[in-house]
Amino acid sequence: MSKRVKLKKPRLPKLPKLKRAHKKILNDIPGTLTYTGYKDQKHVTVELIDYSPENHKYEVFQDVSNAFNKQIPGDISWINVNGLSDIEQIEKLGQHYNLHPLILEDIVDTNQRPKIDEYPDYLFIVFKMLYYNEEGVFMNEHISLVVGENYLITFQEADGDVFDSLRQRIANAKGRVRNAGSDYLMFAIMDAVVDHYFTLIEAMSDRIEDLEDVLFSNTADQDITQDIQELKREVLRLRKAVFPFREVVNRLEKIDSNLIDEKTISYIRDLYDHVTQVTDSIDIYREMTWGLMDMYMTTISNKMNEVMKVLTIMASIFIPLTFMAGIYGMNFEYIPELQMQYGYFYLWGAMILVFLGLLYYFKRKKWL
Amino acid sequence: MSKRVKLKKPRLPKLPKLKRAHKKILNDIPGTLTYTGYKDQKHVTVELIDYSPENHKYEVFQDVSNAFNKQIPGDISWINVNGLSDIEQIEKLGQHYNLHPLILEDIVDTNQRPKIDEYPDYLFIVFKMLYYNEEGVFMNEHISLVVGENYLITFQEADGDVFDSLRQRIANAKGRVRNAGSDYLMFAIMDAVVDHYFTLIEAMSDRIEDLEDVLFSNTADQDITQDIQELKREVLRLRKAVFPFREVVNRLEKIDSNLIDEKTISYIRDLYDHVTQVTDSIDIYREMTWGLMDMYMTTISNKMNEVMKVLTIMASIFIPLTFMAGIYGMNFEYIPELQMQYGYFYLWGAMILVFLGLLYYFKRKKWL
Amino acid sequence: MSKRVKLKKPRLPKLPKLKRAHKKILNDIPGTLTYTGYKDQKHVTVELIDYSPENHKYEVFQDVSNAFNKQIPGDISWINVNGLSDIEQIEKLGQHYNLHPLILEDIVDTNQRPKIDEYPDYLFIVFKMLYYNEEGVFMNEHISLVVGENYLITFQEADGDVFDSLRQRIANAKGRVRNAGSDYLMFAIMDAVVDHYFTLIEAMSDRIEDLEDVLFSNTADQDITQDIQELKREVLRLRKAVFPFREVVNRLEKIDSNLIDEKTISYIRDLYDHVTQVTDSIDIYREMTWGLMDMYMTTISNKMNEVMKVLTIMASIFIPLTFMAGIYGMNFEYIPELQMQYGYFYLWGAMILVFLGLLYYFKRKKWL
Amino acid sequence: MSKRVKLKKPRLPKLPKLKRAHKKILNDIPGTLTYTGYKDQKHVTVELIDYSPENHKYEVFQDVSNAFNKQIPGDISWINVNGLSDIEQIEKLGQHYNLHPLILEDIVDTNQRPKIDEYPDYLFIVFKMLYYNEEGVFMNEHISLVVGENYLITFQEADGDVFDSLRQRIANAKGRVRNAGSDYLMFAIMDAVVDHYFTLIEAMSDRIEDLEDVLFSNTADQDITQDIQELKREVLRLRKAVFPFREVVNRLEKIDSNLIDEKTISYIRDLYDHVTQVTDSIDIYREMTWGLMDMYMTTISNKMNEVMKVLTIMASIFIPLTFMAGIYGMNFEYIPELQMQYGYFYLWGAMILVFLGLLYYFKRKKWL
Amino acid sequence: MSKRVKLKKPRLPKLPKLKRAHKKILNDIPGTLTYTGYKDQKHVTVELIDYSPENHKYEVFQDVSNAFNKQIPGDISWINVNGLSDIEQIEKLGQHYNLHPLILEDIVDTNQRPKIDEYPDYLFIVFKMLYYNEEGVFMNEHISLVVGENYLITFQEADGDVFDSLRQRIANAKGRVRNAGSDYLMFAIMDAVVDHYFTLIEAMSDRIEDLEDVLFSNTADQDITQDIQELKREVLRLRKAVFPFREVVNRLEKIDSNLIDEKTISYIRDLYDHVTQVTDSIDIYREMTWGLMDMYMTTISNKMNEVMKVLTIMASIFIPLTFMAGIYGMNFEYIPELQMQYGYFYLWGAMILVFLGLLYYFKRKKWL
Repeated sequence: MSKRVKLKKPRLPKLPKLKRAHKKILNDIPGTLTYTGYKDQKHVTVELIDYSPENHKYEVFQDVSNAFNKQIPGDISWINVNGLSDIEQIEKLGQHYNLHPLILEDIVDTNQRPKIDEYPDYLFIVFKMLYYNEEGVFMNEHISLVVGENYLITFQEADGDVFDSLRQRIANAKGRVRNAGSDYLMFAIMDAVVDHYFTLIEAMSDRIEDLEDVLFSNTADQDITQDIQELKREVLRLRKAVFPFREVVNRLEKIDSNLIDEKTISYIRDLYDHVTQVTDSIDIYREMTWGLMDMYMTTISNKMNEVMKVLTIMASIFIPLTFMAGIYGMNFEYIPELQMQYGYFYLWGAMILVFLGLLYYFKRKKWL
Repeated sequence: MSKRVKLKKPRLPKLPKLKRAHKKILNDIPGTLTYTGYKDQKHVTVELIDYSPENHKYEVFQDVSNAFNKQIPGDISWINVNGLSDIEQIEKLGQHYNLHPLILEDIVDTNQRPKIDEYPDYLFIVFKMLYYNEEGVFMNEHISLVVGENYLITFQEADGDVFDSLRQRIANAKGRVRNAGSDYLMFAIMDAVVDHYFTLIEAMSDRIEDLEDVLFSNTADQDITQDIQELKREVLRLRKAVFPFREVVNRLEKIDSNLIDEKTISYIRDLYDHVTQVTDSIDIYREMTWGLMDMYMTTISNKMNEVMKVLTIMASIFIPLTFMAGIYGMNFEYIPELQMQYGYFYLWGAMILVFLGLLYYFKRKKWL
Repeated sequence: MSKRVKLKKPRLPKLPKLKRAHKKILNDIPGTLTYTGYKDQKHVTVELIDYSPENHKYEVFQDVSNAFNKQIPGDISWINVNGLSDIEQIEKLGQHYNLHPLILEDIVDTNQRPKIDEYPDYLFIVFKMLYYNEEGVFMNEHISLVVGENYLITFQEADGDVFDSLRQRIANAKGRVRNAGSDYLMFAIMDAVVDHYFTLIEAMSDRIEDLEDVLFSNTADQDITQDIQELKREVLRLRKAVFPFREVVNRLEKIDSNLIDEKTISYIRDLYDHVTQVTDSIDIYREMTWGLMDMYMTTISNKMNEVMKVLTIMASIFIPLTFMAGIYGMNFEYIPELQMQYGYFYLWGAMILVFLGLLYYFKRKKWL
Repeated sequence: MSKRVKLKKPRLPKLPKLKRAHKKILNDIPGTLTYTGYKDQKHVTVELIDYSPENHKYEVFQDVSNAFNKQIPGDISWINVNGLSDIEQIEKLGQHYNLHPLILEDIVDTNQRPKIDEYPDYLFIVFKMLYYNEEGVFMNEHISLVVGENYLITFQEADGDVFDSLRQRIANAKGRVRNAGSDYLMFAIMDAVVDHYFTLIEAMSDRIEDLEDVLFSNTADQDITQDIQELKREVLRLRKAVFPFREVVNRLEKIDSNLIDEKTISYIRDLYDHVTQVTDSIDIYREMTWGLMDMYMTTISNKMNEVMKVLTIMASIFIPLTFMAGIYGMNFEYIPELQMQYGYFYLWGAMILVFLGLLYYFKRKKWL
Repeated sequence: MSKRVKLKKPRLPKLPKLKRAHKKILNDIPGTLTYTGYKDQKHVTVELIDYSPENHKYEVFQDVSNAFNKQIPGDISWINVNGLSDIEQIEKLGQHYNLHPLILEDIVDTNQRPKIDEYPDYLFIVFKMLYYNEEGVFMNEHISLVVGENYLITFQEADGDVFDSLRQRIANAKGRVRNAGSDYLMFAIMDAVVDHYFTLIEAMSDRIEDLEDVLFSNTADQDITQDIQELKREVLRLRKAVFPFREVVNRLEKIDSNLIDEKTISYIRDLYDHVTQVTDSIDIYREMTWGLMDMYMTTISNKMNEVMKVLTIMASIFIPLTFMAGIYGMNFEYIPELQMQYGYFYLWGAMILVFLGLLYYFKRKKWL
């Protein structure tokens, strides 16, 4: 009865369970760095992208301190740190850029919800990168971003991200990015993340339609409760990641900071429109998903109705006929009909009449 | 069991699926123009309506640059661009009117939600034109509007729109439009769009009533789950198009811009009232639609109840009678009743008594 | 199965279907007068009530221009226009009092939601008059009100309203009304309307209780889905009429206008309290109405449970007994029990034991 | 089937139906006094409690004017009026204290929702006293309060209230009350009312738990739909009384009036916390109550499942066996099994095998 | 049928019932101290932790007055009072620190919801400590906190809390705490409390997953209504404790007080992020819990469907066959088939055909 649905399209891989590593941090001092993610990438990779309208440099290191020395004064430096488990590296970076201890704590706390913190010399932004990697596996990655006067640092849990196209645009000097400041780079990174939210939205839409098709096809007897429940859970998780991020972008648009150029504000406003499209869609898919359960319930009831009708028709027709046969199976000494020459055939006639009468009755009730 | 409902009125054509063409734009530079609509109208048609209280001119071109030369200084120029797939034409227009690159991106991004952006020299407004075209097909079209000092540009996905009556009023100098500025023209365009929202609202109301009729008629055995689900989906899509548009109109009413004349504000306030009527109705239809599912559920249960009653009555009457007949079909050597002369008739009497007793019982329970 | 409920109290007459006459107005110029109501009262009746603390005059005309001439300078004039289909008359009035074209449009657009517009010389208020007329028919009438320095104009769709008691108070100089200005008259009119909202609230409360009685009585087999759905629809319509009206009263309380006397504000605040009582009640009745559907569902399920129990008991008792009888109806050459002298009576004993055992089982399960 | 639940704890007496006496007041002049309550206490009792840190006097009169003369200048006077049906008395009081006519109207309108009105010389507060009287009957009483410089007037519908402990504290000079002004007395009165809200909250909690016990006990076959519906109705009524009262207290805390001493503000803030506790609880009980209906629904379905299983098991076992017996009851001339010597016993063996096989099948399905 | 679920993980112990001890306090004077908790810890334990960057002292007393004398001027003193039933001790403390009577009342009123009160010399904060104690029992404890210039007092209902790690950090001078003021200590205490909220959130998540597993496993026939209802109740209680606490932290972040150092604000903002994560999760678990009921309902219906199918198949197959056998059990004098030599075998053939036909029919309907 409860074979799982065979969806036509590949099923979205299950989101890994997100749990704060409380056993580890319950007794921690506030400001202590404890990596709470589930990706145990041991080594840290540090990318340095250093660019100005004229120059462009791309290097990869195993240690953050190398990155500091290679920066060219006057250029914009994007330092991308992949891997959060080597606390020492992150502390070194924190010291060099004078980051507040709570920022460092948030960088490695993968359960930190999206937020923005303003500091005099830099902005600190946390959000979630949701995307499918190249093997089609769904990735939910904690990502932090510090943007200062002419540098921008991103922290990711592991190698692999959604910024390859941005890296190419910087390398090839396509678009505004090489001519703009670190604030525009910040926008470009967040824009890439939001663009990938749309792919999730589409996957969700596809899955809802697949489940509706299963419900409407009405032939198979599949239990899709579990599929619906999983979908619900994912819609709620997506909400949890995207709604606070919308607030971050909204605040970014209204922020009063020297770090954000007047011209970039238009781009951030545009980004806000895009995130709002995502949240609008999430809310629609949420209502649709909740509605699926009701639909499934009516589908079950409809099926039960059909089962009941078959039973009722079969029983209502043959039980009376069996009774009639039973009458003439009795052994009374004197049953006049039994002696009639064509009694047996008369009875058959009567039975056929009853049969047709009941058929007509069910036909009129539209049960047949 | 699951024949689809035959609604008496023509079914509202299905809304085409709206998907952002992400494959295309995922790696795009922000500010890049990529048409994301599903209407591949290759050629661009440019209408120029140039008018003043005294003059009126109407011309159609294949190239936007023609339109620039034909404008008469001092007149109001309405440039209507049909077709968004020829990016070059739109960029040419953008250069001539000095439009921000993000505006151009939004003009061709058909998934852009309704919004208003204020720029020093012009206002940029995005909304959705929802209407039935002349063949009765439902159209959902992305429409953008730029309004400046004495010009107004509209961008549509394809030929055919809801502005024919407005064009005639301009041509025939009926109403205020020829004597007012570009701000009043903007109002008139939005008013025409909102007037067509009402027709959708009515179609929705009709469909809800049709479904209710099916539910109440109670005769046919139709599965209307799918119809209800489609209706839900459309209510949600309508909400998604109209609610942000209400915010746009609200902000337009409160805007502090030289472009909007004091007198036009009254008209915009009136427009706001109309949009609010639409949103009020959408919310009512939304509740009604959600309620339909519950109603359908009770209808199914009521039917099952009826089926069960028939089964119960038939089985409860004939199973005991069959048992009585079975007793006297036994072959015991000594069954005293069998030897009684009128035993058979006494038994018939007893059976009729049991039959009447059960009938009376079911009658009293109101099951008959 | 689906006989409709016979409610003990008279059923609230169905609200007439409200539809905007779009075919007519779709291509209209904004500011064009088009009557959209469903009451085709051809003639217009104009009442003039002219009063001061000392004087009182009451006259009825067929033409508005007569009313202008009969006004006594220094008095308060209440001009009540019944019938909106004669556009000319309304335009004449608009010209005399210098009303904005959009006001005139709203006066005849019966779908206009309740609102208040402030103009330098007058206030314009739209609301809905909901009441039972003398034949007990439910009336939903669009009513507009223009209040100026010493005049007040009301527009109704047809003759007959809820202001008779107010007319008498003016005639008999009862209460404050003769000694107060046009602002107090405005309050008195709105107060009379709100007082009649309460009668609707009570009718709704009665109907909910009737439906609950039907549900709890549990005897009859009535389908009340349709009644509940109608109730839902009416609660939603009432909401749609009253909630925006509350906003109107709220704004009136806070308005900064010479037209509203300081003393009248207390009365308006009191009116606001009353409207809020109505909206509170509507929300309660809304929740109760939605809850009715769930209750009905459990009632159906309870009934099905009862049906199933009867079937189960009858079948579970007589099917085994029939089997026992069947055994001894077999024609095997050697069935030892058949030769026993009291075999038949032993079998009866066994059958009675089985019968009692099953009875006891069902009794213990509380199914009997 | 639908015996009502016998709750272990005494059932909360039904709230009396609250209806505005509209027939009476529909045509009234605003500001007219019409008592709308259901308690026809004919006589009015007037209590005067006059106190200062040193003095204390308690007297009861039948006429308000007596109370005026007995007040001691400089003392705080608490005038408590029991009974609202003698309009004359209330008007006399209104004249003496110069109360606005609308206040007098609200005092006798028992449907007035909780509110606060600020006047230059006094505050006017309306709220609801909800409590069990000494016979355990639930009381819902309209109570109004006017607090001025050194007097406080309360209006109640009938004798009997929740202020006895407060009267004793005044008499015995316990607590702050004798040393504080009329504002503290106002607080003390409202505090006593809120303390009694808690008893209702507890009664509600008990009833929900009783209903849950009935649902979980699962033995009895009681119809608790009606109980749940009544509970819903009461939760909604409690909400209607308490939520606006919270707004009253909130506004009182922020009011800018000479009448409220700085020190009393702390007490009012504390009162606000208490009312918020009540509203928090009401919202929790509301969700729990709504959830009861779903629980009841699953309980019914679970029971039906059980009924169905019994039927299915009995029918599925005995119908095939009866068929087997039927086979050998046939009268064909040549049925080889019938001539076998132990045919009857072989058949019994086969039947027992079928019986055990089906038992095993149902066991494996966990239906037994 | 209704065996309770055996959850794999240990069931969260039931939250003790929270009731205000109204009988006791109903007639109390506001400002009277009445302990309303359910923990009758008779003795009071007073801990004094006195520290400065250089010094650290830890002492335990049975009387608060001892603690006053042992404080070292210039140090930060944390006085932790365990046990609220000895009113005298708390009043002594209140006198020494000049606490407002209403604060003392709130300290011992365990039903007081989380709140913050600002006084000139100190802040007063109430919240709830929710945690598992060492025996794995769930604890819900009322906790109050007074923070002044260089002292901080906490009040708990009983010994045992979540602050051991904080005590050790103070003792060992780990982290900022020894070098910071009483405001940072306040933050550290609240942070410890919030960290334990996360453990509850996780326990809730585990229980929801356990219930889902029970629902999806589909094998056992357990009644989980009660489990779901308990879960609902706990989610609502958790909400009640955590949501007002979030408001407290929010207000603390924005407070304008000399007591809170600029640097501590960053930590409080971080705390606010954490509480918001908890409230986000509570809302998600709330929706999931409510959804469980729907899922359970579909599971029940699915099971009933299965039961019905078995019944329908068995009855539909064997009732017609029994009828056929019944026919040839009749005793008519002339039934031609009976005389046929292979009549019996022909009949068997016909029966097998009917049997296979019905099997095929049910197979095609996917009921088998």
